[in-house]
Amino acid sequence: MLLRAGLVMMADSRTNAGVDNFSSFKKLHILADEADRQIFACSAGSLSMSQSVISLLKEGLPSSDNADLPRSVHDATTMFRAAQLVGEAVQAANATVGGALARIGLESSVSLLLGGRIGGQPLSLFLIYNAGNFIECHAEVPFLQIGETKYGRPILDRALSYRSSLAEAVKIGLLSFDSSMQSNLGVARPIDLIVIPRDPELPLISRRIEEEDAYFDDLSRCWASELKNAALGLPAPPWMMISEA
Amino acid sequence: MLLRAGLVMMADSRTNAGVDNFSSFKKLHILADEADRQIFACSAGSLSMSQSVISLLKEGLPSSDNADLPRSVHDATTMFRAAQLVGEAVQAANATVGGALARIGLESSVSLLLGGRIGGQPLSLFLIYNAGNFIECHAEVPFLQIGETKYGRPILDRALSYRSSLAEAVKIGLLSFDSSMQSNLGVARPIDLIVIPRDPELPLISRRIEEEDAYFDDLSRCWASELKNAALGLPAPPWMMISEA
Repeated sequence: MLLRAGLVMMADSRTNAGVDNFSSFKKLHILADEADRQIFACSAGSLSMSQSVISLLKEGLPSSDNADLPRSVHDATTMFRAAQLVGEAVQAANATVGGALARIGLESSVSLLLGGRIGGQPLSLFLIYNAGNFIECHAEVPFLQIGETKYGRPILDRALSYRSSLAEAVKIGLLSFDSSMQSNLGVARPIDLIVIPRDPELPLISRRIEEEDAYFDDLSRCWASELKNAALGLPAPPWMMISEA
Repeated sequence: MLLRAGLVMMADSRTNAGVDNFSSFKKLHILADEADRQIFACSAGSLSMSQSVISLLKEGLPSSDNADLPRSVHDATTMFRAAQLVGEAVQAANATVGGALARIGLESSVSLLLGGRIGGQPLSLFLIYNAGNFIECHAEVPFLQIGETKYGRPILDRALSYRSSLAEAVKIGLLSFDSSMQSNLGVARPIDLIVIPRDPELPLISRRIEEEDAYFDDLSRCWASELKNAALGLPAPPWMMISEA
């Protein structure tokens, strides 16, 4: 979520290879957290692919003809350059890991969200697709999603705006994850999140919502009852009154 | 939705072959509406496939070795037999239409919901998959979905129960479609619906929600504001108070 007030990135940590093989891996990654650059990535897709992409980015990409292009997010001069680098890492992982999996008949893919700030430049947020191409988030639709996106999208569409406060955005993001978790076992706590206020004087907030978390439990319970009551409180179709008499 | 109070079936009518080719086709089909049998089907997937399946079912399937199996839903002795027949029609459409499309490199699929009642037997509801296999709806999860299912699922998961009244169920179903329509241009009014009360003395209710419908417009508007207010009214994360000061 890229808002007037700042950037919020969130990721669950459930991975699975079939319903009999669930596990928990961090999907919110710190690529740089220094005084002049804070860069974070969320990953979705095949775990071996996304780990490969993150490792490539952390170790730096092998050099190529374009010797003037920075080879690590630590050297990237802009977030756009950092997104290009992530796209290149995705293409490299596809060529190696993805190619090996394809040879044994397994499909694989990876996508990432890349967000942060370099120096005094504005905060930005990108979605990098499996082909290595990417799009940037703008104020009209102030969020991007990867992975299991659909269950959690309606609440983002309705409640989040560019002018939402950071606390509101975090709450709405958690409600979005809650909707996905209610409907799909493939999404589960812990949820990792990072908040970068637009004002560089304010500190970053980093938080993990564990499998037992009093605030989240309470939020989830209240939301379930609010939703149900709101739905039940709306007027019934007038043409259904016949059968209700 | 298969409830204690009866059966509700709903379908939108948007079809598309790419974003530049939208059209409107009825996806709720009457297979039988007679004194001793009411059988309805909703379809999703490739339009040519689903039309082929429905036509096969209306005209009757070609005879096979199993001469004792009924070849039309008008002859089916139970809803289970009717579901088998639909599965067979799906397999026939896959072999002909699906095969032709596959030969030019196009993927196609079709899935259906089949609901209704034969004679004095209980109401039942089936989901027929693209392979022709099917599952039956039971009270624990009192609904089945096909097509663009995810955006609209959270509200069904939370607000609908086996004990919901028919008017509540219709309202919740419309809210579910509203969520899908907000997030995906591929779902749109008109929405067709049929309500079969469990009490056979009560009349069926059949209704089309047109593109302009005062009740639906009002429901959609109220729901948007209720959702937004409910989300905003929930407590913010206590650990986010710092940046809000």
